[in-house]
Amino acid sequence: MEQSLERLHVIDRERYHFEKALAVLRWDQETYLPEKGVQERAEQLALLEGIAHQRLTAPETGRLLSELGSTHQNPGGDEKLPALERDFLKVFRRSYDRAVMLPGDFVSDAARAEGLSQAAWINARRDNDFSVFLPHLVKMIDFARQKAVYWGWQDNPYDGLLDIYEPGMDSKAIGAVFAPLGQRLSALLKKIAAQPRPDNAFLVQDYNLDNQASFGRELLKRLGFDMLRGRIDISAHPFTTILGSDDIRITTRYLSRHVQSGVFATIHEAGHAFYEMDFPEELRGTCLADGASMGIHESQSRLWENVIGRSKPFWENMLPAMRSYFPAALYSITIDDFYRAINLVEPSLIRVEADEVSYSLHVILRFELEQALFSGNLNPAELPAAWREKMKALIGVEPETDSKGVLQDVHWSIGAFGYFPSYALGNLYGLEFWEKLKADIPNTDALIAEGNFAAIRTWLRDTIYVWGRRLEPPVLLKTVTGKNLSSEPFLSYIESKYAGIYGV
Amino acid sequence: MEQSLERLHVIDRERYHFEKALAVLRWDQETYLPEKGVQERAEQLALLEGIAHQRLTAPETGRLLSELGSTHQNPGGDEKLPALERDFLKVFRRSYDRAVMLPGDFVSDAARAEGLSQAAWINARRDNDFSVFLPHLVKMIDFARQKAVYWGWQDNPYDGLLDIYEPGMDSKAIGAVFAPLGQRLSALLKKIAAQPRPDNAFLVQDYNLDNQASFGRELLKRLGFDMLRGRIDISAHPFTTILGSDDIRITTRYLSRHVQSGVFATIHEAGHAFYEMDFPEELRGTCLADGASMGIHESQSRLWENVIGRSKPFWENMLPAMRSYFPAALYSITIDDFYRAINLVEPSLIRVEADEVSYSLHVILRFELEQALFSGNLNPAELPAAWREKMKALIGVEPETDSKGVLQDVHWSIGAFGYFPSYALGNLYGLEFWEKLKADIPNTDALIAEGNFAAIRTWLRDTIYVWGRRLEPPVLLKTVTGKNLSSEPFLSYIESKYAGIYGV
Repeated sequence: MEQSLERLHVIDRERYHFEKALAVLRWDQETYLPEKGVQERAEQLALLEGIAHQRLTAPETGRLLSELGSTHQNPGGDEKLPALERDFLKVFRRSYDRAVMLPGDFVSDAARAEGLSQAAWINARRDNDFSVFLPHLVKMIDFARQKAVYWGWQDNPYDGLLDIYEPGMDSKAIGAVFAPLGQRLSALLKKIAAQPRPDNAFLVQDYNLDNQASFGRELLKRLGFDMLRGRIDISAHPFTTILGSDDIRITTRYLSRHVQSGVFATIHEAGHAFYEMDFPEELRGTCLADGASMGIHESQSRLWENVIGRSKPFWENMLPAMRSYFPAALYSITIDDFYRAINLVEPSLIRVEADEVSYSLHVILRFELEQALFSGNLNPAELPAAWREKMKALIGVEPETDSKGVLQDVHWSIGAFGYFPSYALGNLYGLEFWEKLKADIPNTDALIAEGNFAAIRTWLRDTIYVWGRRLEPPVLLKTVTGKNLSSEPFLSYIESKYAGIYGV
Repeated sequence: MEQSLERLHVIDRERYHFEKALAVLRWDQETYLPEKGVQERAEQLALLEGIAHQRLTAPETGRLLSELGSTHQNPGGDEKLPALERDFLKVFRRSYDRAVMLPGDFVSDAARAEGLSQAAWINARRDNDFSVFLPHLVKMIDFARQKAVYWGWQDNPYDGLLDIYEPGMDSKAIGAVFAPLGQRLSALLKKIAAQPRPDNAFLVQDYNLDNQASFGRELLKRLGFDMLRGRIDISAHPFTTILGSDDIRITTRYLSRHVQSGVFATIHEAGHAFYEMDFPEELRGTCLADGASMGIHESQSRLWENVIGRSKPFWENMLPAMRSYFPAALYSITIDDFYRAINLVEPSLIRVEADEVSYSLHVILRFELEQALFSGNLNPAELPAAWREKMKALIGVEPETDSKGVLQDVHWSIGAFGYFPSYALGNLYGLEFWEKLKADIPNTDALIAEGNFAAIRTWLRDTIYVWGRRLEPPVLLKTVTGKNLSSEPFLSYIESKYAGIYGV
């Protein structure tokens, strides 16, 4: 058994390296690839992804897992194995099962259909013509449902899709926390809309791009981002990627008339990067050196971006630094002006640019529509009308066109159903963690106001990152906070913060 | 047979993509990899190189080659095949044979020994202690000899090593052209040393690095480098690498007190890149989309760097452009001042920074020493003394230390014997091509003086690049120029150019 385990670790290590090599090719594609190199890069990626899949699903892997007592029903294998090895087997087995349980033809058919669907979506959005996308959407829903069935979720395929991103969660558990979340955020949004709008004109003027980049690097330095183990570059859509255990890269974008965008994207991605940089040594280079889930990852990025990064203590320390890069624009701006401007709440049509109050409402909208689509309660043809209706009810605005409504996101066009809830779950997880952190480090605000993040980072490392991917989100939450999933900490935080700003 | 050929093309195409994916990882390592990511990148590369080797040497490949009639003795296969397919089989078979004729143990033993040898060389150079390197050097010579024997060069292993870099060339042919080259360059160098030294002080002052980079990009644009199919970045040692058929990247370096370095490295690498960018469509993505040899590749880079890039017509057009980036430094510098300064001849100890006259002499020195080592006429222990003696005889200078002498280059420490001659062969090939080009395009100088390089690039494309790797260097040379290898065109060019500058 010892030999089988050793060999499986070698296979896992090679899988890890192979995956990171693929990440190098993708990172390069988003940052530095010359325009005409795109087509061939896609071929390179397809080839290497195929080889990675072949290697993971080789018969030897299945044999080793059996020898270790790991099955689909008992993924952790032999009970005599140490806890760490059992967690390793669980997580490894999960990827293995996901790969081998899908027939090869199904995978290539789905990949081809996704390509066509995404292309159709691009045209549909450009021409504001949902009917062009509809037949593809229907196919994408079918493929997603079929995939869940292959994985054993015959009775509730949508739960099978949610499980991809949030292991251990299901639509019932998510629905239970999203219900009060939707009601109270909608109510708060209405109250805020009745208040005078804070002035943010000083943020919406020309900010020199080179100075934005210099301030971005300074920000990272002050947060403690280790440039010997990472980088920051520019891409159209900000992201974090892992090219090696000591090579965690983030990207951001700088827009000349929207300085906030680069600042908060940088802090957000740094939050993802900190998680990836600080896994314990014993998990290094294994499948356990990974976030617990999409939502837990998002809890880290949104904690840094919003709870820390949009707080007043944070800017007490950072505003003078930022002012030195943009003296003209920020000369007369006080910390209160700045704080109110970066926390401007304004119902809008687009999730990615949404404020902290309405953000989760955009997610709830998609969750409810996805549930209805997969339960058969909503016909895909009725989606545009359903979207407008829900948008009006939850956020109070209505898109004039489908391009700005149901067609705004790429996710559905590539069959990524079940992905959205993680974004809002991140907010909820984050505030549950934060409540515990503040209990453990009572002077958090003072430390942030000093620009001293060491204690916060150490706490996150020793209580959350230390687990890597060993625990599923509900177990991790319970282990860290002693509590179950709840929207209460997030709602208390939001209601109290915005009561302060808007007097509601 | 048709099916076998089709399948072999698929294998070759995948080999091509895999190789380019590896190139992405290596490019990133030299340009943007965070400092602490180096160790894991080496593991990623080792894994992927191993997989690439496994795939190339899979039994299926050997079977397909047999089915097509390709053997070690008759690599081009069945004579009924079209010429292009026969060339494809020759080149593919060559890589295949090189890979399968070495026993696996030998390859890994050699790789391990190389690692140790390079580490020993680094220490030996740092401490100026040849004795630390000597035992490793002996091993490297043994491994290289053994490798040549495995490939079938029992009678003259050194020819087997030369053949890696210059297919179809051997030490006799190279010796025949290097003999007059050495004599006449040495004689010219002595004459020049007796003349007054041109003033190049204006080049050896601070040149702003950002402006150097901006001028570098302008230079590339004026040369016609296609930024939609390539990039320029910065690395410690300039190089060109191919990440895809439409993704050819060069690197350069900018030194604040040595502006020439970045300028000529940029032009040199652009010469390599033009070759790779302009292979004909029919060779795209195959093993024939490659330079004919190291030396032919070097003929292109050195043609652009020296014959074009260090000519007076070139700077008649470029100096005003360069002056606009460095007005203070170049304000009062005339085209004649500039031309003399960038063509300063000064015997020195180091090949990489050598002028056009002494450059080939550095190469001849290594060629003669390598020949002596492999024929058994020189004991490796006697190498430091032999180096000093030859340096004195050929170039007229003598290193004070072994670090600046026999230990200066990395090549021998990693067993790369037979590599050096290509550098000087590049000069010879280049001038033979150039002679023909000038006969075909009589107003070359006038075009260069206008900054119009289109006709030159078209000629190079249609007469040289069009062959890709189909022809071995001697055949390519004959096909393009109608002549055999000779040092005469290069020597006439050098003697006439430097007679003009130094009045010798």
